Amino acid sequence: MTRKLYVLNGPNLDMLGQREPELYGSATLDDVRTDCERVAGELDFDVFFAQSNAEHQIVEWLHDAYRENAAVVINPAGFSFGSVPVLDALLMLDAPIVEIHITNIHARDAAHQHSLISSAARTVIAGAGVFGYELAIRAADRLTS
Amino acid sequence: MTRKLYVLNGPNLDMLGQREPELYGSATLDDVRTDCERVAGELDFDVFFAQSNAEHQIVEWLHDAYRENAAVVINPAGFSFGSVPVLDALLMLDAPIVEIHITNIHARDAAHQHSLISSAARTVIAGAGVFGYELAIRAADRLTS
Amino acid sequence: MTRKLYVLNGPNLDMLGQREPELYGSATLDDVRTDCERVAGELDFDVFFAQSNAEHQIVEWLHDAYRENAAVVINPAGFSFGSVPVLDALLMLDAPIVEIHITNIHARDAAHQHSLISSAARTVIAGAGVFGYELAIRAADRLTS
Amino acid sequence: MTRKLYVLNGPNLDMLGQREPELYGSATLDDVRTDCERVAGELDFDVFFAQSNAEHQIVEWLHDAYRENAAVVINPAGFSFGSVPVLDALLMLDAPIVEIHITNIHARDAAHQHSLISSAARTVIAGAGVFGYELAIRAADRLTS
Amino acid sequence: MTRKLYVLNGPNLDMLGQREPELYGSATLDDVRTDCERVAGELDFDVFFAQSNAEHQIVEWLHDAYRENAAVVINPAGFSFGSVPVLDALLMLDAPIVEIHITNIHARDAAHQHSLISSAARTVIAGAGVFGYELAIRAADRLTS
Amino acid sequence: MTRKLYVLNGPNLDMLGQREPELYGSATLDDVRTDCERVAGELDFDVFFAQSNAEHQIVEWLHDAYRENAAVVINPAGFSFGSVPVLDALLMLDAPIVEIHITNIHARDAAHQHSLISSAARTVIAGAGVFGYELAIRAADRLTS
Amino acid sequence: MTRKLYVLNGPNLDMLGQREPELYGSATLDDVRTDCERVAGELDFDVFFAQSNAEHQIVEWLHDAYRENAAVVINPAGFSFGSVPVLDALLMLDAPIVEIHITNIHARDAAHQHSLISSAARTVIAGAGVFGYELAIRAADRLTS
Amino acid sequence: MTRKLYVLNGPNLDMLGQREPELYGSATLDDVRTDCERVAGELDFDVFFAQSNAEHQIVEWLHDAYRENAAVVINPAGFSFGSVPVLDALLMLDAPIVEIHITNIHARDAAHQHSLISSAARTVIAGAGVFGYELAIRAADRLTS
Amino acid sequence: MTRKLYVLNGPNLDMLGQREPELYGSATLDDVRTDCERVAGELDFDVFFAQSNAEHQIVEWLHDAYRENAAVVINPAGFSFGSVPVLDALLMLDAPIVEIHITNIHARDAAHQHSLISSAARTVIAGAGVFGYELAIRAADRLTS
Amino acid sequence: MTRKLYVLNGPNLDMLGQREPELYGSATLDDVRTDCERVAGELDFDVFFAQSNAEHQIVEWLHDAYRENAAVVINPAGFSFGSVPVLDALLMLDAPIVEIHITNIHARDAAHQHSLISSAARTVIAGAGVFGYELAIRAADRLTS
Amino acid sequence: MTRKLYVLNGPNLDMLGQREPELYGSATLDDVRTDCERVAGELDFDVFFAQSNAEHQIVEWLHDAYRENAAVVINPAGFSFGSVPVLDALLMLDAPIVEIHITNIHARDAAHQHSLISSAARTVIAGAGVFGYELAIRAADRLTS
Amino acid sequence: MTRKLYVLNGPNLDMLGQREPELYGSATLDDVRTDCERVAGELDFDVFFAQSNAEHQIVEWLHDAYRENAAVVINPAGFSFGSVPVLDALLMLDAPIVEIHITNIHARDAAHQHSLISSAARTVIAGAGVFGYELAIRAADRLTS
Repeated sequence: MTRKLYVLNGPNLDMLGQREPELYGSATLDDVRTDCERVAGELDFDVFFAQSNAEHQIVEWLHDAYRENAAVVINPAGFSFGSVPVLDALLMLDAPIVEIHITNIHARDAAHQHSLISSAARTVIAGAGVFGYELAIRAADRLTS
Repeated sequence: MTRKLYVLNGPNLDMLGQREPELYGSATLDDVRTDCERVAGELDFDVFFAQSNAEHQIVEWLHDAYRENAAVVINPAGFSFGSVPVLDALLMLDAPIVEIHITNIHARDAAHQHSLISSAARTVIAGAGVFGYELAIRAADRLTS
Repeated sequence: MTRKLYVLNGPNLDMLGQREPELYGSATLDDVRTDCERVAGELDFDVFFAQSNAEHQIVEWLHDAYRENAAVVINPAGFSFGSVPVLDALLMLDAPIVEIHITNIHARDAAHQHSLISSAARTVIAGAGVFGYELAIRAADRLTS
Repeated sequence: MTRKLYVLNGPNLDMLGQREPELYGSATLDDVRTDCERVAGELDFDVFFAQSNAEHQIVEWLHDAYRENAAVVINPAGFSFGSVPVLDALLMLDAPIVEIHITNIHARDAAHQHSLISSAARTVIAGAGVFGYELAIRAADRLTS
Repeated sequence: MTRKLYVLNGPNLDMLGQREPELYGSATLDDVRTDCERVAGELDFDVFFAQSNAEHQIVEWLHDAYRENAAVVINPAGFSFGSVPVLDALLMLDAPIVEIHITNIHARDAAHQHSLISSAARTVIAGAGVFGYELAIRAADRLTS
Repeated sequence: MTRKLYVLNGPNLDMLGQREPELYGSATLDDVRTDCERVAGELDFDVFFAQSNAEHQIVEWLHDAYRENAAVVINPAGFSFGSVPVLDALLMLDAPIVEIHITNIHARDAAHQHSLISSAARTVIAGAGVFGYELAIRAADRLTS
Repeated sequence: MTRKLYVLNGPNLDMLGQREPELYGSATLDDVRTDCERVAGELDFDVFFAQSNAEHQIVEWLHDAYRENAAVVINPAGFSFGSVPVLDALLMLDAPIVEIHITNIHARDAAHQHSLISSAARTVIAGAGVFGYELAIRAADRLTS
Repeated sequence: MTRKLYVLNGPNLDMLGQREPELYGSATLDDVRTDCERVAGELDFDVFFAQSNAEHQIVEWLHDAYRENAAVVINPAGFSFGSVPVLDALLMLDAPIVEIHITNIHARDAAHQHSLISSAARTVIAGAGVFGYELAIRAADRLTS
Repeated sequence: MTRKLYVLNGPNLDMLGQREPELYGSATLDDVRTDCERVAGELDFDVFFAQSNAEHQIVEWLHDAYRENAAVVINPAGFSFGSVPVLDALLMLDAPIVEIHITNIHARDAAHQHSLISSAARTVIAGAGVFGYELAIRAADRLTS
Repeated sequence: MTRKLYVLNGPNLDMLGQREPELYGSATLDDVRTDCERVAGELDFDVFFAQSNAEHQIVEWLHDAYRENAAVVINPAGFSFGSVPVLDALLMLDAPIVEIHITNIHARDAAHQHSLISSAARTVIAGAGVFGYELAIRAADRLTS
Repeated sequence: MTRKLYVLNGPNLDMLGQREPELYGSATLDDVRTDCERVAGELDFDVFFAQSNAEHQIVEWLHDAYRENAAVVINPAGFSFGSVPVLDALLMLDAPIVEIHITNIHARDAAHQHSLISSAARTVIAGAGVFGYELAIRAADRLTS
Repeated sequence: MTRKLYVLNGPNLDMLGQREPELYGSATLDDVRTDCERVAGELDFDVFFAQSNAEHQIVEWLHDAYRENAAVVINPAGFSFGSVPVLDALLMLDAPIVEIHITNIHARDAAHQHSLISSAARTVIAGAGVFGYELAIRAADRLTS
């Protein structure tokens, strides 16, 4: 039976590749999508890949993931640091959650250092660049095997 | 003259009955709506009952309540803990505001313990389960008599 | 079988109606007792209503409640903010505890804002004036049904 | 018309003269009472002088002072640092309140440095030894003239 | 060549003139728009003026400003105090950013005192009432000359 | 010459054996008294064993201990965490003070973790169950030899 | 009737143009004086422009402003962050106060981030360079019209 | 032998009687000087009364007091809250120091609540209005007798 | 069957008797060893007594204790206040752990006041001098009976 | 040319598989070594795999890694939370550092929540169980390609 | 070419030798001046040695040092702990700054423990007594060679 | 009689000259040793110079210094910020202790800013580069004369 995987991306990630490339790299979100679909395909995941700047959209996709019992890879971006609605939505899920950050947030300034979301995640990967998405999907695969 | 009452519900409450039922109970939001409409009817309130995962939607319903001079019963859920826009919208109202939480947030973990919203409310009810909605409407009735 | 209910009131509540009436209202504690006995009677509670300025008296009434397996409605007043003995006595009880405050303590100054007692309560009602006692008894009724 | 004055003393002050005399001096509480009655007499105050180790006793004497509209000189001693019941009782009074400490609490260790009671007092006198009682009564006289 | 200017307004500003007029004044947001268009016209700015209660809408207008290399005058209102997505979107811009608050937020209560957004702004103007918009546009003009 | 020993017990300890037995064990306070009297007898102490829920009672027993120059074994229970009157009374004593807690308070929740009383004690014993009383008396014996 | 305006400058501003020009720009304080006198003249202000490194001098000029009921534009520089005497002197004034900082202090290091003075100001302008003085005078004009 | 007494007054006290009279009263500093000279004369003190807005002037007067072994009554005003130089100068003195505040600083806002100076004082008197100067001189008399 | 007991001593305890004898007493670690072996013998413990200044040595002895299922009496000395490796090693053990400090660390300066280790211990004994070792072994005996 | 990789393991990891298996799993450190050598071999890394309970040993292996310009995968375990020597040694390296934790430390208790080491790492992986080592090596491979 | 050196001394240092000699020693500031001139002479410094109790005087001497490109040895005394004007003046200098304290401020009470000034200094010497001045001048010599 | 001097160096200092030379300079620890031996020889010190990455080694060298009554110059490096064992060992010594840091730690990031060790030192020298060792030995010489 095919397993479902949601790969969700938070605010400003639609600007990936343009925004501070010395920090985030030059790959765009479309490049990331292509990579994720390739890796997910190899691992027999049926993948849903999306981005939104709206908190309620992320919350509702997580409700969908709950209904489909899908694993979730999430880059919460700016919602990492204070969004209780996203945290509450994640706490509903039984399937594994992998949180991914492109940069090593633990080494950044105080306002970007502590992710509230991490308390709901099973695995957290930070600072591996966009390659972190591939690592995250492999971790989700292992956690659902 | 019929009095207006808004019963507003914040993020993830559309999942009520499915989400952590050992914590929130098995009643759904439709069950809550039915109960609220019954009690409000007995007390001659003209009730508007709604839920949204979007902060701006809650803000705009509060603007409507302001224009209609309606009393407000609000379960801010995940917006309790950091939403200044919702707080600012509540501060505009002259009619009474009753804040309700299904669980006793004061006994939960640190991230769910202190509601920023409470400083704008007249009455706060927490931990009576969904029966708290009935208590909240009775309190609103008393405050507008 | 008749159920037991303790309605306990902490320090300075013997001055109710005289003390800062713009904040606490003009009803006296005797008015509150009459209301409580009426509502409790309707709900078939055998009610014990009392007030004390002494912490040890509150503690010992809670020991009595423990022995009678009574539900407790408590307005801890000045003991809300630092009395570990009252907290410890409440933690012994299996029957439901409803904490009630006449004013919305969450909107007051820092020294009156956070109740230590709330972590032991099932339901917390604040800011509904003395009408809050009626709501509290109704909540206790529901929790023991 | 004779004015009323309450001079109230908190816990452990019954041991004055025996307890750490290098810090509190060798005068006993009876010596203090004699001095206070002399000064109050000169200023035409009808004085009530008392000490208790029990918080509820202090609270109830303050209720009496409230009923008689008496000025209050209070050495809260160990109740200075955390007694919300005493603070709440003081907040009821319209007549002036003078807080007195035998030692300069502002120069002591952290746990004895900040009096919660001071926010309800009009005048605070600390570190003048037992002579501070005389100064406090003179201040109360001036505030009620 | 005509320069672009975005004047962006955060949540609840659509109620300007109605909401707490003793604090915010009686001018409406339409009055502000008229003023801004007049001043911007004098200084040869091509102006885009808008308001939203939705965080994602503000974020996306900032993405547009990024693409057009526009200067930004922003009144973040309730997003000032905790919106990392708005902060991150502002950090992308090279063109100057002027933050404006109608009231002097530095003199208000703790929850409205420190703007997270200010660390991304070049100029901050607070407490000049709606006249602050004119000052902000003049500052943006100077910074882009 | 027979030495005096006070064994004092704070609030809620009269419920020992009934209150949370999985935490405090099933021995009652009478069992503890019997044990203490046996051990104290072996060591030639003249023992006074008492319990009170009232802070002022504990304070006054400590005044008695001061007058008799008695050693003190004290389980302050709920007074450990904020009672400055008890702390001040202990600071008067020259004879040794041994503080005892049945559970290891250092490993409990934040509200039960730090004893204010310990700064006045010579020896502190926590987490040895009711056997800790015997250890405490042996420590007091050694400190007064 | 001509209105009075004080433009006051705090410590180290006599070195403007020499001190860290990449941060403060190359204009000297004499250039600023010329600009201020021009703008103030256009707006019919009778202007007093001065600088001092001495706190007491600033305090005494503010006393003069109080006596003349003058509006005040002040760049408190190093006095922003801890001078209670300057704050107290400002609190005496009824006429409007505009605080100006050449740089955006809100985006600087912790020691230069929060101005104590701002709680006494009506308007705060930061980060517009020396052009901020012109904006500040225009704001003072509007506030006294 | 005549004893020396310094009565020193900190910044903004030259404006006494004009500055916020509802808070500080209508007496001027000259009225205070007259009162102090009368009381000091009765008690055979040779009094030096002065005020300065300059920290270094207060420091140097304290050096003079040190050389003359004079008692000091000081109203540090705005220097109470952060002046280490004044604190260090006071720490040199062997003669008694009495700190006086016209208002009860312990009941004011956070920035005016804790006097750093108090750790060097023997006696602290706050909130007795300008009558506090008389009480302070009487305390200094008692401490030097 | 003989039970095993580890008595482990942390850094600088090899200097016992020489180091600050007014604080730690004049007994040497060899005196302590002799006492411990005598008491352990009476109670039928097979005792291993050791000291090390090296964190890894303590960790490895705890691994040995884990393998032998031995009870542990530990004076962590300077490792009390920040050694997570020692804490983690203790958390592995099922057999009881008794923590002992020669002085009352709770009454010392801030850097020596809170033992991180205590959260893993069953019993904590502080301030009984070297006699505390005997008390600790008796506690371990009781906990393993 | 073969690249060097150090896989370093901190204190207590020699007990892996025995220590709290419900938290850390049942794989031993030898199992981890076998896995790491297999993955490293596939990616053409010359791997050095080691564990120590001694801080100085970890520091010296990091000096070796510095000399060989090796990439480092490190599970600092108990050294994560306070070892500045390990942090300083890591800061010397130019080659990439990947930090790995078997559990999600961000969701654990306060003492195990914040890794000091992370500020020196390029990539951080937490909560993927021992499979995290494989992910870490793949990340190191990508960072050195 | 002769190099310039400023040796500047802050408030209360004019009392050196008289003030708390058990802490600061018995040498006077004139003794220090003589020593400094001797050492500076040996090292071919043209020395300016001065003391002031006035913050503005120190600031202006630092402006002079800036104009002469002089090295600075500064004992900021009471200005160490909160003077942003002195800090800002030091930040202007390119020549090296050596901060000196007679006592080891790092081992004193909280109010004298952290020097704000140190963030601008190249070298900090504390606790070597007045001999520290000689060490400081030697350090300045090395830094300007 | 020849005096003894220990010059002790903490973790990572064996890499001096290689590690971040732009921060620590290019001199190696052997260069430092040569310099120290030369200066110590001139001052008739019998010098022991050593480095270790192991905390216990530093502790034991300090025990040796205690036995020989040697003065100590210590660069605690990474042990500055949290090693209570090193602090306790230093507290045993009667002979003077000089702490030296190559960089000015007071101006670095938070994790490297506050030395715990300084409370035990007589003299602290930071930020004079490796020349600080010479200054430190001269200070030790003066303190033992």
